[in-house]
Amino acid sequence: MTTILDGKALAAKTDENTKIEIQDLADRGIIPGLVVILVGHDEASQLYVRNKDKRARKMGIHSVVRNLPETITEEELIQIIHSYNADPTINAILVQLPLPAHINEFHVTTAIAPQKDADGFHPVNLGKLIVNRTEQTPIACTPAGIMKFFKAYHISLDGKKAVVVGRSTIVGKPMAALLVNANATVTIAHSHTKKLSELTQEADILVVAVGVAHFIKAVDVKNGAVVIDVGMDRDAQHKLVGDVDFDEVKNKAAYITPVPRGVGPMTISMLMAQTVSLTKWSSEQNG
Amino acid sequence: MTTILDGKALAAKTDENTKIEIQDLADRGIIPGLVVILVGHDEASQLYVRNKDKRARKMGIHSVVRNLPETITEEELIQIIHSYNADPTINAILVQLPLPAHINEFHVTTAIAPQKDADGFHPVNLGKLIVNRTEQTPIACTPAGIMKFFKAYHISLDGKKAVVVGRSTIVGKPMAALLVNANATVTIAHSHTKKLSELTQEADILVVAVGVAHFIKAVDVKNGAVVIDVGMDRDAQHKLVGDVDFDEVKNKAAYITPVPRGVGPMTISMLMAQTVSLTKWSSEQNG
Repeated sequence: MTTILDGKALAAKTDENTKIEIQDLADRGIIPGLVVILVGHDEASQLYVRNKDKRARKMGIHSVVRNLPETITEEELIQIIHSYNADPTINAILVQLPLPAHINEFHVTTAIAPQKDADGFHPVNLGKLIVNRTEQTPIACTPAGIMKFFKAYHISLDGKKAVVVGRSTIVGKPMAALLVNANATVTIAHSHTKKLSELTQEADILVVAVGVAHFIKAVDVKNGAVVIDVGMDRDAQHKLVGDVDFDEVKNKAAYITPVPRGVGPMTISMLMAQTVSLTKWSSEQNG
Repeated sequence: MTTILDGKALAAKTDENTKIEIQDLADRGIIPGLVVILVGHDEASQLYVRNKDKRARKMGIHSVVRNLPETITEEELIQIIHSYNADPTINAILVQLPLPAHINEFHVTTAIAPQKDADGFHPVNLGKLIVNRTEQTPIACTPAGIMKFFKAYHISLDGKKAVVVGRSTIVGKPMAALLVNANATVTIAHSHTKKLSELTQEADILVVAVGVAHFIKAVDVKNGAVVIDVGMDRDAQHKLVGDVDFDEVKNKAAYITPVPRGVGPMTISMLMAQTVSLTKWSSEQNG
């Protein structure tokens, strides 16, 4: 029997909790503020930003979308980030990735004040995650959402073999850290990995974030594995699919996330929750 | 044929390079300053601190050893760290671990100014290592020294299976990050790992940092593996030995570090090199 991990339902449940926290803050006269900065007009990015904005507004978050031209310089972008760092109505800052090639992603990530770092990409926040000291520390939303699946579906991680395919700052690296902190034995695989299929076949927990449609097939997966698909790819028919061949793999896995309605909705929910957490933490420090 | 990785020789060579840099700085009127803070009177720690001090003085580094009583409070210790953060004659601060139980290691680590962080344990430095942006970033000395072995002995890491046993902030976690950055496929194993021997038997590169004498036996090691032993343990006869049973494993490994004269001397050399690097970086930013 395979359990399909229902991202839409879990996101709705997560949002309910977040709404209660937003109401608590409202009772104290505090409205969480989120700014999403979008440089250029990448279509996929525009869609993501729109979805984030819509969800935030619906939940009672003060949501700002700042559209900036493709031609903006790194210095100008960083100046704008600094202005939001200083803006008391903004508690969470997210710069939508990818950025145009002339802008250094690392410089931008490190310009965001760590206490307003909605994505948890600032090195000091990542470092705290690595050493498992995450009190009042934002964590990258996609892996944080994946951890919620494990919790909601009572999937134990302690002593399990976990394989994370992909080593991005956005998913792979923080995911590996969260799994190590949860006492899994973690392997980080990537484009230089040899005999990848042998590795993934041994995984009790398999997280795939490579950005290639149907990269993982049934043959690559252990019977009874937990398979988490972070991909948002297009197949030959331009249909949205994941990095995992869902139709094949679902018969072999014990748990699997679909695409869509899997990891994606939870990522946005975690962004909302994190915006509220950042707001609470800052109000605790100020008050 | 097994190659014994000669830590004493590599440390001497590393020190020669560091001395040239110290001379260059001296020509500009700059003397690198290192303070090592020791709380209490743990015997092993006292020995390590003495060795560090001796090496630093011999190389022309301004070396300060600050002995503090076991009873010092966390607040007092942090005040002292802040005074060194502000002291222009000090470029590198190291707090010898472990600390007494009443002092929070994380609070102390984060009190050190990142630009004077001799051990690279501050979360912002660890975070930069994780995202592979290590320009002007100190890195934990033990794993940094291990990387020097790989380089000196032309041991390729790209696409290799590396297993790191131990997940400390001091060794395991930064070691894993360095290996991922070098394109190895990295598994982090630890006390919760099941069937550890099966894992280590698959490792092309095996780094062991568990603190248990002769924990790894020949049966746990792949033929032709590179075996790095971070242990500094005492056997039943109180003799200094490693986490790896050297006499057994040396016949199976292609490369192996002995204990003593393996990883240990390189760790101190990297501390010296890092003290000089921190001094150079700060002089570049000030001048």
